[in-house]
Amino acid sequence: MNQWIEELQTELLNGQVLTDTADRVSYSFDASFGEYLPEAVVQAKTKEDVIHVMKIANRHHISVAPRGQGTCLSGGPLPVKGGIVLDMSQWPEKIDVRPDDLIAIVSPGTITASINKKLESYGLMYPPDPSSAHVATIGGNLAENSGGPRGLKYGVTKDYVIGLEVVTPEGKVIRTGGQTIKNVTGFDLTKLLIGSEGTLGIITEAVLKLIPKPPAAQTIMAVFDDVESAGKAISKTLTSGILPAKMEFMDQASIGAVERYQPSGLPVDAAALLIIELDGHQEAVTKEAADVEAVMNELGATHVTVPATQAEAARIWEARKLVSPAIAAIKPTKVSEDATVPRSQIAPMMEKLQRIKEKYHVELVVFGHAGDGNLHPNILCDKRDTEEMKRVEQAVEEIFQAALELGGTLSGEHGIGTMKAPFMEQELGNVGVEMMKRIKDSWDPNGIMNPAKMFPEHNQRLVLRHE
Amino acid sequence: MNQWIEELQTELLNGQVLTDTADRVSYSFDASFGEYLPEAVVQAKTKEDVIHVMKIANRHHISVAPRGQGTCLSGGPLPVKGGIVLDMSQWPEKIDVRPDDLIAIVSPGTITASINKKLESYGLMYPPDPSSAHVATIGGNLAENSGGPRGLKYGVTKDYVIGLEVVTPEGKVIRTGGQTIKNVTGFDLTKLLIGSEGTLGIITEAVLKLIPKPPAAQTIMAVFDDVESAGKAISKTLTSGILPAKMEFMDQASIGAVERYQPSGLPVDAAALLIIELDGHQEAVTKEAADVEAVMNELGATHVTVPATQAEAARIWEARKLVSPAIAAIKPTKVSEDATVPRSQIAPMMEKLQRIKEKYHVELVVFGHAGDGNLHPNILCDKRDTEEMKRVEQAVEEIFQAALELGGTLSGEHGIGTMKAPFMEQELGNVGVEMMKRIKDSWDPNGIMNPAKMFPEHNQRLVLRHE
Repeated sequence: MNQWIEELQTELLNGQVLTDTADRVSYSFDASFGEYLPEAVVQAKTKEDVIHVMKIANRHHISVAPRGQGTCLSGGPLPVKGGIVLDMSQWPEKIDVRPDDLIAIVSPGTITASINKKLESYGLMYPPDPSSAHVATIGGNLAENSGGPRGLKYGVTKDYVIGLEVVTPEGKVIRTGGQTIKNVTGFDLTKLLIGSEGTLGIITEAVLKLIPKPPAAQTIMAVFDDVESAGKAISKTLTSGILPAKMEFMDQASIGAVERYQPSGLPVDAAALLIIELDGHQEAVTKEAADVEAVMNELGATHVTVPATQAEAARIWEARKLVSPAIAAIKPTKVSEDATVPRSQIAPMMEKLQRIKEKYHVELVVFGHAGDGNLHPNILCDKRDTEEMKRVEQAVEEIFQAALELGGTLSGEHGIGTMKAPFMEQELGNVGVEMMKRIKDSWDPNGIMNPAKMFPEHNQRLVLRHE
Repeated sequence: MNQWIEELQTELLNGQVLTDTADRVSYSFDASFGEYLPEAVVQAKTKEDVIHVMKIANRHHISVAPRGQGTCLSGGPLPVKGGIVLDMSQWPEKIDVRPDDLIAIVSPGTITASINKKLESYGLMYPPDPSSAHVATIGGNLAENSGGPRGLKYGVTKDYVIGLEVVTPEGKVIRTGGQTIKNVTGFDLTKLLIGSEGTLGIITEAVLKLIPKPPAAQTIMAVFDDVESAGKAISKTLTSGILPAKMEFMDQASIGAVERYQPSGLPVDAAALLIIELDGHQEAVTKEAADVEAVMNELGATHVTVPATQAEAARIWEARKLVSPAIAAIKPTKVSEDATVPRSQIAPMMEKLQRIKEKYHVELVVFGHAGDGNLHPNILCDKRDTEEMKRVEQAVEEIFQAALELGGTLSGEHGIGTMKAPFMEQELGNVGVEMMKRIKDSWDPNGIMNPAKMFPEHNQRLVLRHE
């Protein structure tokens, strides 16, 4: 056995270091593409565990790929270079709510949805709501800077983290930020680490900023005959002084998929659906709902539903949540993208997506967080069909180009990981990528922290075919 | 003449490079302590100007201290090592509002208040509101991550910047972030640069995130007989589901100073004043105002004023704005601090400040943004009085210690600069500071970007005496 594995076994408790093939295979994939077998898996449960792992790995130059629940769509947790998978999902849940300070201190293994469950009784809220919140860990959310529908009004994970405890690639502990909302003491390492995809260190604790839970909410669903009018209705709403909590878009293909998967009462003939949630004080919400309804009608909605009960609203949102599983049932493989454009470019982006769909004959479904320009084009395919996957790869490349041409970005909330690394320079230029790499290299001189993520290897290209 | 000055004169236009003693003296100080004579001043007006300056400075290893309007309270623009002051305040104002995208693209020389003036007609708002907004440049705000009263509800400068154009210390141009709200493409260099105090590069353009302007606002002023009750009223308000836009505190000394400076109708016998602004929809604001009034009365306010007109509310806020000039008139020297504590620790911090005031016999006045724990203890003194200044230095050191003991931070919004550099390790530990320095060194290998800021020189101590 390798000496470093023996050292891990000496420093950690019995059962924390897994080397059986079956265990290693379980940790060889995530929710994206590719399988890579690690040499060992460590289930970390304390900061000290992480320090041991990083010191041993750094001494022996062994790669470490940190991992939460593995729901990542961009390859973040994949042990591309073998080495160690550092599983943080077994870390005991800790949610220390401090209502007077409007903060919660959480452990990395905490399931994100548990946080809001605990906050209910305090009348407080942690706004970020990635679709995977019920299964993903907050640690994974921090590493990837997860978004979600509420990003439109409330921002993303990064906007609600004010402090971190981090083990560096060399096994030292630092605290970034703190427990105050305002803090300008030195560089903002907190926000540098959030979204760094485990390439700079391991987060062992986070201080989350909370807000009072809005007392009321109102859902509105608007049906459109054409995508362009839906796009205009989004712009018009946002420029009329209203900032909805959520503003979701579904195209005809995603509506049809949901209705075939589990009939939910959605209008299958519609070209596009907008599902909006307003929140705040009851009086304000009532007024804004009337304003939004008027905008939707003005822009040509064929039907506007304003559910009168919470149960009715919940049914609409459940239908929206079904999009992902529904489209996954269409074909064996689902390639989920999240190229994001400025809000005003949603309609042009929809047009470009339609052209890409036709050009490459791919089954392209579009839904997502339209209010902030964060669409989710999904291509449904079969990864065993080499010819089809080649077309899918070309379509994905063209989706990235389309977003960049419209002033957008490769990824709004899924991360770069292995999937989008080859396109980094297209967006950031070689100097932009180089300045990021300088930071990476200065923190991780031995290059052991989650290698092959974010930064492309020489001549790396998107390959969905060989897994 | 130095060769690098000749090179500057060759590359830049006539009149952009200043070397006269009078000009250099004008650029030798800011609103904090210390005077340092630069060897040359360059008034940059384009990105190309900045590239020339950085390339020449980097080649010759000459320090560059970027500067906006010089309103900095922590020494950010001081040319501590001589070299070049890069004056960005003459850069032509540019405010390119894109209402559909809810963004504005601005030049670094733009006066911060001009941005909101321009946004009025769009019904939009750029929330950060540092007290110096009418005179400071947005470039300076970006470098220092400025705060202001609205930080409580809306956050600080950093929370409203989604993209930057930056010239690196080596004279290369990068773009960080972009024009979309969601963006997880690589490390968040935008937020690393905001608040980096000009130590990592020169910001030549920024993309600001805007929000719809709240349609209504209501001011409330509550008078307290004792500071502790005021502290409890702050906590109680914030935990009752209300997030005011502003929640300002004034102690007896600051009330008295304002009334002596310019009678404004403030209650001079009060031990403490809270001035609160609620904003949002009229209906919600009216309801919240009633709730806040009830909280203030419950916690023992001796008087609560709810101004019925905007003019009356404006008078209260003008009185609040007079605190800084009013206390500056008391004695020749004003040492402004902004140590910040978790919200729940405001009352204990006030007690500690009272003890420090008595221990060192210093004239200590406290006001500030109480809702987010960002107090401004100001010590009024005379810098020519060496004995007094020694006591002031000790008091300031103890204020920092008090904030850190209560889980707070050295600086909430003024920055570290030269003033707080000696205390960085106390808050961040030596590894924390080292990880920041690694980033600095990797971006600026010749150490030319605003040296002697943020990172302490060996054995550096706070010295307010020798200017």
